[in-house]
Amino acid sequence: MSSQAPEVLISEVGPRDGLQSVKATMPTTDKLRWIDALYASGIREIEVASFVPARLLPQMADAADVVRHALTLPGLTVMALVPNLRGAEAALAAGVHKLTLPVSASEAHSLANVRKTRQEMVEELARIVRLRDERAPGVKIEAGISTAFGCTLQGAVAEDDVVWLAAAVIEAGADESGLSDTTGMANPAQVRRLFHRVRAEIGERTGAAHMHNTRGLGLANCLAAYDVGVRTFDSSLGGLGGCPYAPGASGNVVTEDLVFMFEAMGIRTGIDLNRLLAARGPLQAGLPGEPLYGMTPEAGLPKGFVPAA
Amino acid sequence: MSSQAPEVLISEVGPRDGLQSVKATMPTTDKLRWIDALYASGIREIEVASFVPARLLPQMADAADVVRHALTLPGLTVMALVPNLRGAEAALAAGVHKLTLPVSASEAHSLANVRKTRQEMVEELARIVRLRDERAPGVKIEAGISTAFGCTLQGAVAEDDVVWLAAAVIEAGADESGLSDTTGMANPAQVRRLFHRVRAEIGERTGAAHMHNTRGLGLANCLAAYDVGVRTFDSSLGGLGGCPYAPGASGNVVTEDLVFMFEAMGIRTGIDLNRLLAARGPLQAGLPGEPLYGMTPEAGLPKGFVPAA
Repeated sequence: MSSQAPEVLISEVGPRDGLQSVKATMPTTDKLRWIDALYASGIREIEVASFVPARLLPQMADAADVVRHALTLPGLTVMALVPNLRGAEAALAAGVHKLTLPVSASEAHSLANVRKTRQEMVEELARIVRLRDERAPGVKIEAGISTAFGCTLQGAVAEDDVVWLAAAVIEAGADESGLSDTTGMANPAQVRRLFHRVRAEIGERTGAAHMHNTRGLGLANCLAAYDVGVRTFDSSLGGLGGCPYAPGASGNVVTEDLVFMFEAMGIRTGIDLNRLLAARGPLQAGLPGEPLYGMTPEAGLPKGFVPAA
Repeated sequence: MSSQAPEVLISEVGPRDGLQSVKATMPTTDKLRWIDALYASGIREIEVASFVPARLLPQMADAADVVRHALTLPGLTVMALVPNLRGAEAALAAGVHKLTLPVSASEAHSLANVRKTRQEMVEELARIVRLRDERAPGVKIEAGISTAFGCTLQGAVAEDDVVWLAAAVIEAGADESGLSDTTGMANPAQVRRLFHRVRAEIGERTGAAHMHNTRGLGLANCLAAYDVGVRTFDSSLGGLGGCPYAPGASGNVVTEDLVFMFEAMGIRTGIDLNRLLAARGPLQAGLPGEPLYGMTPEAGLPKGFVPAA
């Protein structure tokens, strides 16, 4: 691992996006061990939980406990997903550093996912921003534009809608706005075009590329996003997760393969690949029998591999 | 499928590279059905066989019969791999349109794969060129630089060696020279750098990018090659194949995912994706129980998908 500053930020979403997509509930102690292993590899931003009612997502019932533990890891940005104001209250009470609120560019997906229109979600975001300003002004708020590249319910999503929504969430007070390929429909040309337009609109407030590997294009899309200036990438160890409300969608980008790609390209991630591969151990231990993905873990690092210096 | 000319050439290598890497031998009639299905999807270049002694690769014992059938498909470029002059004689006698000779940039891999040094392979190529000039001057000869991005035996391969070898094979009379990531060690930065250098050296004689998905970077590497002007891509239906002499190497780029990527980007391949997916049927029928790969076949085409126009 290089002593120099990372050039890209890998934001691990497995403990939230991954765990909420599988049927089994990982015991809290296993979650903490897994998060510790991710941290030990050099990962410095983790979406550790989702603040949603436990009756909807029992996998996330221990969100506050998980956050409490994650806050003990020095230098780690502890993120949580919140679907609404109520979730934001709980997340802020738990002490997270960063909130992420999904706002869908597809009206159909927005209604199916959170039973709100896009405009209603922007208003919800504005309420969350006010709450944050009152209670925890240091906390960052990201709005992740989901279904930004297409929707399994409505099909194509107009690029103008995505650009409008990215501007609207920043206007409403979000610190950054990323784009999510919730449904695995993105292609590299579209990724370059859309991130380019969004950056022209909101500049450095452009947040993460959250790509899926549904049709095998996950890394190509991350490369495309990198090419147009994106420097934060969401991914999930073992490719765990997807979106339970977007039928047919599956497969977050695999953190191991993503980190391998950047490190092999000479782009510093701050992550030690061998330790990252070792972090699959506690994941597997906490979710016995759950299939994990990833080509680099299967093939191993190439002979004579040299990480970014 | 668009009526306009394709913008990239997808060169299907499954019937050669794929079939010679699996243990089972596909019956000839099944091979022909599979090739017909590939052709029906719009594929116009297929590496249909390898001309090697049947005792070494019994899967390829019917090479001449397969070529004979493939030659009946109008507009199809019928390619065969030959490891040496003897193979070239047989391939030319069978009537192929194009020969491909693997020439390894790694001395260690060259010795292990064909028991010749790189220089000896360049000399072998020159003999094949003379034979071609005498017997079948219309036939094209490609020299595929294998282990161009790294070698499982010797580790790193000097980029200067690759550029030198690409120039040497063109000097020896090859019509084109492509670069192969035989061992799945390439990364997009390296792909851009090396193809850029090779194009600077041999210009339009630069041939195919033959990428592997060993560490999940196959499509990202194809995108990188496209970005620097490469317009021919080798891939294998169902990701069948690899290199039996490069331990740990596996996984050709999946044709279905590659075609999906380009078509989704608006880059015409000339291939109908639904028919391409249907071509997995005869492949599976001829190789029962053999695992096939591909994310697009699993996920299906996105709702409202529009191919390149």
